[in-house]
Amino acid sequence: MSGAFSFGVTHRDGAARAGELATPHGVVETPAFAPVGTRGAVKSLTHRDVVDLGAQMVLANTYHLHLRPGEDLIGRAGGLHAFIGWDRPILTDSGGYQVFSLGDRRRIDEEGVSFRSHLDGSLHRLTPESAADIQANLGSDIAMVFDECTSYPVDEAVARASMERTLRWAERGRRRFQAISEDPDLCEGVLTNPGQAQFGIIQGSVYPSLRAVSLRETVSIGFEGYAIGGLSVGEPVDVMYDVVAETAAQMPDAEVRYLMGTGMPDDLVESVARGIDLFDCVLPTRNARNGQLLTRTGPISIKQARYAEDNRPPDPECSCYTCRHHSLAYLRYLFVAGEMTASTLNTLHNIHFYLDTMRRMRDAIVFGSFESFRQRFHETFSRRPRS
Amino acid sequence: MSGAFSFGVTHRDGAARAGELATPHGVVETPAFAPVGTRGAVKSLTHRDVVDLGAQMVLANTYHLHLRPGEDLIGRAGGLHAFIGWDRPILTDSGGYQVFSLGDRRRIDEEGVSFRSHLDGSLHRLTPESAADIQANLGSDIAMVFDECTSYPVDEAVARASMERTLRWAERGRRRFQAISEDPDLCEGVLTNPGQAQFGIIQGSVYPSLRAVSLRETVSIGFEGYAIGGLSVGEPVDVMYDVVAETAAQMPDAEVRYLMGTGMPDDLVESVARGIDLFDCVLPTRNARNGQLLTRTGPISIKQARYAEDNRPPDPECSCYTCRHHSLAYLRYLFVAGEMTASTLNTLHNIHFYLDTMRRMRDAIVFGSFESFRQRFHETFSRRPRS
Repeated sequence: MSGAFSFGVTHRDGAARAGELATPHGVVETPAFAPVGTRGAVKSLTHRDVVDLGAQMVLANTYHLHLRPGEDLIGRAGGLHAFIGWDRPILTDSGGYQVFSLGDRRRIDEEGVSFRSHLDGSLHRLTPESAADIQANLGSDIAMVFDECTSYPVDEAVARASMERTLRWAERGRRRFQAISEDPDLCEGVLTNPGQAQFGIIQGSVYPSLRAVSLRETVSIGFEGYAIGGLSVGEPVDVMYDVVAETAAQMPDAEVRYLMGTGMPDDLVESVARGIDLFDCVLPTRNARNGQLLTRTGPISIKQARYAEDNRPPDPECSCYTCRHHSLAYLRYLFVAGEMTASTLNTLHNIHFYLDTMRRMRDAIVFGSFESFRQRFHETFSRRPRS
Repeated sequence: MSGAFSFGVTHRDGAARAGELATPHGVVETPAFAPVGTRGAVKSLTHRDVVDLGAQMVLANTYHLHLRPGEDLIGRAGGLHAFIGWDRPILTDSGGYQVFSLGDRRRIDEEGVSFRSHLDGSLHRLTPESAADIQANLGSDIAMVFDECTSYPVDEAVARASMERTLRWAERGRRRFQAISEDPDLCEGVLTNPGQAQFGIIQGSVYPSLRAVSLRETVSIGFEGYAIGGLSVGEPVDVMYDVVAETAAQMPDAEVRYLMGTGMPDDLVESVARGIDLFDCVLPTRNARNGQLLTRTGPISIKQARYAEDNRPPDPECSCYTCRHHSLAYLRYLFVAGEMTASTLNTLHNIHFYLDTMRRMRDAIVFGSFESFRQRFHETFSRRPRS
């Protein structure tokens, strides 16, 4: 580990920003995309693959790691970096999103959330305090505060009550984070990364006034960075873009801005255009396993019979391992045959596409040509799968 | 493609041989182990992984490729090398072993075997001639002649009749191979690798007199190389070693000797000691997916609770990617969680172990120290899993 947490904007182009996010496990150049390694591995890849792709940070899920193998075991191994053998930055979510997705199996009260494990039905409880402690055990470089995430659509009154609870939880989560940072002995288990940062989460669904309150109050609590939560939950894409634009414009200029759980490649471009610095999303990895490849012209479904004898690569301009070595015909065959290698090759391609898009955006911002990049991107990319 | 097929022994140490097997897609240093890529991919790995491990040849299965995507499609793509994007040597089996394993779903007659696909129940037929044509379409560097494989135990009379049928089939298979080599237009589909070699297969179960007849007659037909088939089918290991010793000693000295479908690491050492040059086996890959890791001291089961907090690598002396980067605890966790990456990491380790053992044997033969290698190997390796 080296150095403390910091963030600095190095270049601007309109509302778009390029910057450097320094963490105890190294620097992340922004705008950045963190591939999702839910349970401590990016599904179907080795860490070597992920590093070769140029990923500078991965996301891991507190909910899954808490249930198995448990933060105690990971803490005793020296933290998540040591346990999984990954020495670059790690961001952990708070577990909130997964817990709220459990439906019948969770019960929310003012103190926190009780829920039953999807693995064995065992009873667990997450609170703003325990989510901070668990993440202290994991020792991620960026921990997220425990929040309540609303679904879409949601009444304004419900969204307001939820946002206000999120603020109360944010205060408690921040207090706990600071207390254990100052006195690690207070932490349940072992605090494994003294340089850990904690980000606040802005909620308020699609209501600008709620988002404004959430933003103002979250910033007044004070975190090392700020995230926009509660988007990509079913709202129309234009609504999402509007919320991102309005919220990002009011977020502190000096801190990193993270849009959680989003999205399709064009969503990343539009969100960077609105001032977002950091993303994570399961789309490139999950869709890869389902046979969807993202290309410069848009998503394609590798299952289609039209590719059975197509000896061209998925994207002739793509420089990823898969496109440089394999044909649509072979990838289709492997997918239809159910070979694990299909998931690996598709995932390599999709993550490359995401990371390459981020690198192109960063270069464009640095060179002051982001608007022309954005136009060219939309001229070729269509999010509608080819029929 | 470059060069024609040839084999030469370069070093000897007792009955053990080191040699070079030249094929249209490059040289294989023997003794060699070919990882199994049943359907055109080594399960859970990319070709890049396989090359990094140092594999100089892979095996692919004619039965599986015939059923899906079919040799016609592969032929139109330019052959198996082009279709799967692998430019090193490929060996294909004849499909016989898989077909005979189908039990109720196959019917054998003097002409060949009729069988129903395990995928969709469709009716297919393999004969010595069609097996040669299919492999000509695939364009593997080494094709195997179509043989009948007996189970164990089997009466001597049954073994004799089967061995004699295998000889009649070998004559027909060789005649077809030579005919389409001389006039590719005779071949059903496209002959994609004019430099393809064809190996004969010695049968005869565990009966020395039958093995001797099979060997003599197969050699008198004349192939580019010879394989010992019908072993590793349930016979005691000492019986297998005896058959290998007696057969190998009578095999042509100038041609490559291939022991099909074998075995555990100690089987490879004992078979090289008896004069075998080439191996393939699903054990390292299949066992990896089942959580069995092969180490210098023997196999271990990664599932065991004893590894839950063991932060050591599977084999501290192993230089593979998995052992250099990951702990038993992480590998156990990934396996128990059902993560695909567990299969990849375990497979990387097991194939490395096999290929590393082959390289050590080759070095020992070259330096004239094979016997001391063999003794040291057995001093540390026990094939019985640790309890």
